[in-house]
Amino acid sequence: MKKYDSISYKAVRITDGFWKHRQDINAEVTSRAVYNQFSNSHRFEALDCNWKEGMNYRPHIFWDSDVAKWIEGAAYIIAQTGDTYLEQLCENAIDMIIKNQTEEGYFNSHYLVMDQTERFKIRDNHELYCAGHLIEAACAYYEATGKDRFLKAMCRFADYIYNVFYIYQTASFATSGHQEIELALVRLYDLVGDEKYLTLSRYFLDRRGNNTKDPVSKDAKDASRYLRQDHLPVTMQRTAEGHCVRAMYLYSAMADIAKRYDDEAYLEACQAIYQNVVTKRMYITGGIGSSNLGEAFTTDYFLPNETAYTETCAAIALALFCKRMQQVCADSEFADTIERVLYNGFLSGVSLDGKSFFYSNPLEIDPYFYSVNTSSTTKRYLPIMQRVELFGCSCCPPNVLRFLGSLGELLYTHDEHTLFVHQFMNSEASVRDTSITQTTAYPADGAVTIRIAGDDFKQIAVRIPGWCTGFTTSQPYQLERGYAYFDAAAEIRLVFDMPVQLYEANNAVQNNAGCAAVTRGPIVYCLEGVDNGAHLRSIRISSQASFTPEDAPEYGVPALLCEGLRKKEHDGLYRPYSADREKVPLRFIPYFAFANRGATEMLVWVSVSE
Amino acid sequence: MKKYDSISYKAVRITDGFWKHRQDINAEVTSRAVYNQFSNSHRFEALDCNWKEGMNYRPHIFWDSDVAKWIEGAAYIIAQTGDTYLEQLCENAIDMIIKNQTEEGYFNSHYLVMDQTERFKIRDNHELYCAGHLIEAACAYYEATGKDRFLKAMCRFADYIYNVFYIYQTASFATSGHQEIELALVRLYDLVGDEKYLTLSRYFLDRRGNNTKDPVSKDAKDASRYLRQDHLPVTMQRTAEGHCVRAMYLYSAMADIAKRYDDEAYLEACQAIYQNVVTKRMYITGGIGSSNLGEAFTTDYFLPNETAYTETCAAIALALFCKRMQQVCADSEFADTIERVLYNGFLSGVSLDGKSFFYSNPLEIDPYFYSVNTSSTTKRYLPIMQRVELFGCSCCPPNVLRFLGSLGELLYTHDEHTLFVHQFMNSEASVRDTSITQTTAYPADGAVTIRIAGDDFKQIAVRIPGWCTGFTTSQPYQLERGYAYFDAAAEIRLVFDMPVQLYEANNAVQNNAGCAAVTRGPIVYCLEGVDNGAHLRSIRISSQASFTPEDAPEYGVPALLCEGLRKKEHDGLYRPYSADREKVPLRFIPYFAFANRGATEMLVWVSVSE
Repeated sequence: MKKYDSISYKAVRITDGFWKHRQDINAEVTSRAVYNQFSNSHRFEALDCNWKEGMNYRPHIFWDSDVAKWIEGAAYIIAQTGDTYLEQLCENAIDMIIKNQTEEGYFNSHYLVMDQTERFKIRDNHELYCAGHLIEAACAYYEATGKDRFLKAMCRFADYIYNVFYIYQTASFATSGHQEIELALVRLYDLVGDEKYLTLSRYFLDRRGNNTKDPVSKDAKDASRYLRQDHLPVTMQRTAEGHCVRAMYLYSAMADIAKRYDDEAYLEACQAIYQNVVTKRMYITGGIGSSNLGEAFTTDYFLPNETAYTETCAAIALALFCKRMQQVCADSEFADTIERVLYNGFLSGVSLDGKSFFYSNPLEIDPYFYSVNTSSTTKRYLPIMQRVELFGCSCCPPNVLRFLGSLGELLYTHDEHTLFVHQFMNSEASVRDTSITQTTAYPADGAVTIRIAGDDFKQIAVRIPGWCTGFTTSQPYQLERGYAYFDAAAEIRLVFDMPVQLYEANNAVQNNAGCAAVTRGPIVYCLEGVDNGAHLRSIRISSQASFTPEDAPEYGVPALLCEGLRKKEHDGLYRPYSADREKVPLRFIPYFAFANRGATEMLVWVSVSE
Repeated sequence: MKKYDSISYKAVRITDGFWKHRQDINAEVTSRAVYNQFSNSHRFEALDCNWKEGMNYRPHIFWDSDVAKWIEGAAYIIAQTGDTYLEQLCENAIDMIIKNQTEEGYFNSHYLVMDQTERFKIRDNHELYCAGHLIEAACAYYEATGKDRFLKAMCRFADYIYNVFYIYQTASFATSGHQEIELALVRLYDLVGDEKYLTLSRYFLDRRGNNTKDPVSKDAKDASRYLRQDHLPVTMQRTAEGHCVRAMYLYSAMADIAKRYDDEAYLEACQAIYQNVVTKRMYITGGIGSSNLGEAFTTDYFLPNETAYTETCAAIALALFCKRMQQVCADSEFADTIERVLYNGFLSGVSLDGKSFFYSNPLEIDPYFYSVNTSSTTKRYLPIMQRVELFGCSCCPPNVLRFLGSLGELLYTHDEHTLFVHQFMNSEASVRDTSITQTTAYPADGAVTIRIAGDDFKQIAVRIPGWCTGFTTSQPYQLERGYAYFDAAAEIRLVFDMPVQLYEANNAVQNNAGCAAVTRGPIVYCLEGVDNGAHLRSIRISSQASFTPEDAPEYGVPALLCEGLRKKEHDGLYRPYSADREKVPLRFIPYFAFANRGATEMLVWVSVSE
């Protein structure tokens, strides 16, 4: 098995441009906004374990994970900006966690104030999920600050879990109900080097779908088996099933284990599952999970746009899985998928001002159907139309925070001889004795200059994006599995042609038949009602339409103007078909920016005439 | 208020052609097939009220309605063919009903063997619904045979209901949970002339949504209020809401009451509700009810094709409502809707051989999505793909039987001076001293000859079908609200041009955007996979496509051939848009005939290029 290391986010500084702007908002606005929302909703207060019946809140079973992800995100920001205010907030939270951690090492702000005898009894109650996020937070905080008390505390927690689940097996279940602990243990192992954390992670994976202790339905058709990826032992799984976030965290851990144990069976499962996702179960935005029921994958090619679930966390989790896959495969498709997620289905999850969030990221909205969806006989699931600052289940906002905070880690991997350049962002990075500088206006423009100072690497492998149909380079290269391999050089320049391209879906995707998605580079575009009027589905564009970029600094990439044909409105329900359409000017904006100007119609897949 | 009488099915004999063929199958095959299924499933046996715990069946709360609709259908056939076998089967059933009817007049094969103290306590348990169907059956059987013992028995039952619900009000609820009794009482009143039946019908209507006795949710948004049309007093209702069959039976009774009481408030409600249905909530097939949840109407313009519920009974019920509306309005749109239902969403409910039935009549089927809809995490509602001989809730098969049996009643209405010709079928009819003969190959051909012998009517008003864009007549006429008014004459000939026409839906119907339905005359066509291969949505037809009729005697109307363009199949999920399509021959068959050649893809709304 080939193996590559990522260059840590700590060693990659994004210096300017599209993502620097988003990271600045993340550091300055999102970090505060999420903190304030969590503070006002008692999530931090709960850590103090002073809750009593009758108080104006109740510590929820997964609040610790919210706080932990916030700390993790804050740690990434602290590492890059030295933000002392965030550090103080983290210290306050860590004080409470450490103070209330039990002697054995256990911490859970729900169980510590509710009924401790219920500890590790109910598999679906997210204790291991919370523990996993606390461990990740502790790792990140140590990396950011060098302060080790939180890390040590979470090592004690991990040791306790090791004893309860692996040595004495006194817990009422064998594996996590919501995965996260598995990948967190690998991260802890990587940081502190204690083999038992890796052993425990693998143990959790190996027992999944393979033990009699977990309350898994015996009925092979029962959805509950799939929701937690219990339908088969993990190395036998070949399709992405069930709750998307759980699934992707599982597959991430599987890729981690594949790498660290050189385990081909794990890798083969990961590769098959990945292929199933990207060739049959993923929206063009990189969103995954087509059903709100179980927040889950459904079946191949079932990708409805209006009722898409496509949770922000699931998009992030897909990128986290791909990040690990590019550590075991030198194939650009993983970075392509990361890019698809980054610029579309992930970024749509946060407002342009960084203060509010989507849980679901649909690909079509018609406010009319929302307006009549309350008092009718049969209400159907429709995602919200506008981002909000807090959810009851508010997993997405801090996930956005930590993912944007650690964005730099997606740019490079390397082995002894080769440096892989996966993503294009203005940045400075260093690895061993080599420094790497990228200068680019990507994704507004396709020109990228990579400067390398140092002679650690014999070759530089630059990803040629999957969407790219033409490019030029400053020097010769060899193309292999999506990467252009250059001999080491002080400077490599590439220019990716970035015309507007229409994309179509497989014929099996019913609802996209006859339609195309407008893209430019990695960006998927959409129409909004606020620009283009009502009934966006009555609009058709030519497959030969010519698009004019319109300067749109608020997006960091241009809006796109073109001419379309629009069906005239008529009263009645049915009438003889009329080919009569009027020419209308259309304005496409990046999908990630939808719903920043009030509730309005939105459409990604637009009708196309030949 | 203008008022018109229908010419009874007894006085209209369909003599040849499309509907004679269907009526023959109905009389010879369907009548037996449904009887045998009901007999084998103990529905007739249950009438004998000998059921004891431990037996291999359990009388269901609505089995009486199944049997009653079968008797009603059989009666129509007996009236037209003198079928002595069916009459004997009816007599046997009637024997049991009369034998077990209580002294007060009550009959219900469920409650008589279960717990009689529970009688009329639970509104949703269909007792009044069953009673209504028994009353209709008794009326029909008396009209067919002149034998009055069943009619008298059901008058006693109606008298009992009158006492329980109107005089003493000892029932636990005030109005029916599932409507039917209301229109049945009007029918009984029309037949026997006893005012109290009309009074009781109106009483049931007037109290609906207007009493404190019925267990109706107080929450204005609670679906249960809508499902039974309890959300408002009936004269204040303006939209079609809730369970479609209940709704349409209610509106039918409201139209009956409007006519018999000259009540403009009732008529106004009926007209508004009708407009809501046909301009916003009806499939092009005449199917109604877009959701399986509650078998219900949902919201304006929400008309998904694949998950359409569109129950056969609901289509029938819409026609029954329209039949009553054409007794109070001289507007052709009601007959247009009846025609739309007849040739499409109703007729699709029964197989060509008359033996099996659809409950739901979707407008799109992709077997692939059925094949993966069982073992996945999230199963969604999909109607069955093939008709079956019996359902657990087997309301549709006997409804088909009675509706086809009494088809003749849809053809004509009249007042003192004018005879209205609504539907076109080879037939002989008589009213007063006038006989009316229609000669036509409709709907295969648009030529209709109407011969009138007798001078009862000053004018003959012939419906010009809503789909008809050109026609010729043998003599002059005046067009008013969709009818061509001719001076009385011995013969009137009309030729309706019947080209293939493409229809489009309102822009607000999302899923039909960019698509057209292929129609010819009243017939909506569809593509089937068995003729046209996989991925029917990847096919596009030109709005100028030229269609060639293909002889198809099995359908009674031609199949339609044309050339289409088909998108080539590709692997993968997304790719750059290709305008490349291959020319393919297409074969459209009548929608009503879909699913008669095995489970296969089906599509009504086809993509159109200009």
